[in-house]
Amino acid sequence: MVKYEEKNQQIAYLGPEASFTYLATKSLFPDDSLLPCATIPECIEAVSDGKVNFAVVPLENTIEGTVPMTIDYLYHEAELFIAADCLSKIKQHLMVHKSQKDNWQNIEEIYSHPHALAQCHKFLHQRFGSVPLVRYSSTSAAAKLVSETPERCIAAIGNSSSAEKYGLEIVQKNIHDFQFNHTRFLVLSKNNMRLPIENSEGNAKTTLMITLPVNVSGALHQVLSVLAWRKLDLSKIESRPLKTGLGEYFFIMDVHADENDAMMKGAMEELAALGCNVKSLGTYYTYLTQE
Amino acid sequence: MVKYEEKNQQIAYLGPEASFTYLATKSLFPDDSLLPCATIPECIEAVSDGKVNFAVVPLENTIEGTVPMTIDYLYHEAELFIAADCLSKIKQHLMVHKSQKDNWQNIEEIYSHPHALAQCHKFLHQRFGSVPLVRYSSTSAAAKLVSETPERCIAAIGNSSSAEKYGLEIVQKNIHDFQFNHTRFLVLSKNNMRLPIENSEGNAKTTLMITLPVNVSGALHQVLSVLAWRKLDLSKIESRPLKTGLGEYFFIMDVHADENDAMMKGAMEELAALGCNVKSLGTYYTYLTQE
Repeated sequence: MVKYEEKNQQIAYLGPEASFTYLATKSLFPDDSLLPCATIPECIEAVSDGKVNFAVVPLENTIEGTVPMTIDYLYHEAELFIAADCLSKIKQHLMVHKSQKDNWQNIEEIYSHPHALAQCHKFLHQRFGSVPLVRYSSTSAAAKLVSETPERCIAAIGNSSSAEKYGLEIVQKNIHDFQFNHTRFLVLSKNNMRLPIENSEGNAKTTLMITLPVNVSGALHQVLSVLAWRKLDLSKIESRPLKTGLGEYFFIMDVHADENDAMMKGAMEELAALGCNVKSLGTYYTYLTQE
Repeated sequence: MVKYEEKNQQIAYLGPEASFTYLATKSLFPDDSLLPCATIPECIEAVSDGKVNFAVVPLENTIEGTVPMTIDYLYHEAELFIAADCLSKIKQHLMVHKSQKDNWQNIEEIYSHPHALAQCHKFLHQRFGSVPLVRYSSTSAAAKLVSETPERCIAAIGNSSSAEKYGLEIVQKNIHDFQFNHTRFLVLSKNNMRLPIENSEGNAKTTLMITLPVNVSGALHQVLSVLAWRKLDLSKIESRPLKTGLGEYFFIMDVHADENDAMMKGAMEELAALGCNVKSLGTYYTYLTQE
């Protein structure tokens, strides 16, 4: 969790309550007041407009939001900084109404968000190959439906928080296909600051958004040369098309270094001298959720 | 569309019918028999198991599937090749029941998939700031609901195919925030082949999946050196964590060249000699949908 002095901060997050983003937000900010938003742009605007102190949005590998949307909004629409990021394991469980808990081998239908159904594909195929899967708008909406239908033997797939909120019985834990799947969330702030975090993993990292001057062969190679001889290590690189429709790109890169280090300052100056547009989203620490 | 000799091919796609993936699939394979699948893994298995000839799945920037799932399944689970890719503009429209078409300024509720609501954030904020948004499992399910509720002035957001299928009136066209948003779809095949495509854009490209031998500073720089001096241009690069949970990565790269070119063969041999694990998903042409 975050160790800071201010109390009663307002935190926007991508809802609904009991979503995976909610779990991460609650874990980071257990004592603050949490505001669910319906979409990623709403979360980002809530912090841009000063309605909240921070916003928590998914960045990678999520079932709840489109990843490109978060990156594109940060690039095109908002002047925000990353105050922290958070890695959470994705854990999906099979849950039924308590009145059906001894009958769950005879499940008639399984409800969940389409991406959660996809994440549990192998388990569902092997154990419930002939049971109809029903797509629902969120894993927590599916859990709610099951809680309201005690007379039928139907199941929902979702996280432990959904089971708890709607009083369901988890009958099979960890039914997701890949055990090392993580979702990465960003904590966004109007100010360039880094949240002090308990259980933070490793050293600080810095996220850069870099637009190449021309889209020529080798331009990216030149950018990486600037970083490589300084032994500035990348933990992520992703190209994103610019919204000009002309096949031009910007890059988002996570560098394992502090933006105030001499090597990073030198690299950023040289990238600018090469004609790149370089925007730092700040240096921050990573939080690993415990669950 | 695809110009090939075989008739009555079976094509799996990420459904439901009237989804954006359906539109792309129908445009590529107008005369073939299309099989909707509930999830990306189901599509991929349908072609792996030989039940269909091709599968069409979203790869980037989609509202329907998680992008990482497609990449991860191709890397970890399936031995498939890319036979073609397809770029479609994402166009979202506001639609109401025909009996409400003169009353649409007084919409009481707007239904759609959460990602579609997010893609139209600015329009909705400016024009319908106080109208409740209701999340639905897909844009076509929202259109279906509106078609079944003629007595209430509610709207759905979705594509033109949903409006057509459910007989709705489009009252505002192109309400999405970014005009140059594309979704990219892959056509997957068990064989390394390239579909001959009418209106294909530019030259062939090749998709490589590359695992670095060690996760050291500069390893990616070394990989790009192999490509850069040969003027092998990248149109996409993205790092993806391996599922070992150890902070190791593989890279997916799109190279503007044919895998049978002398320069590409040389590059792939050198990458292997450097200790990289290199897997080519094949060389293929890009199809631009006309709509």
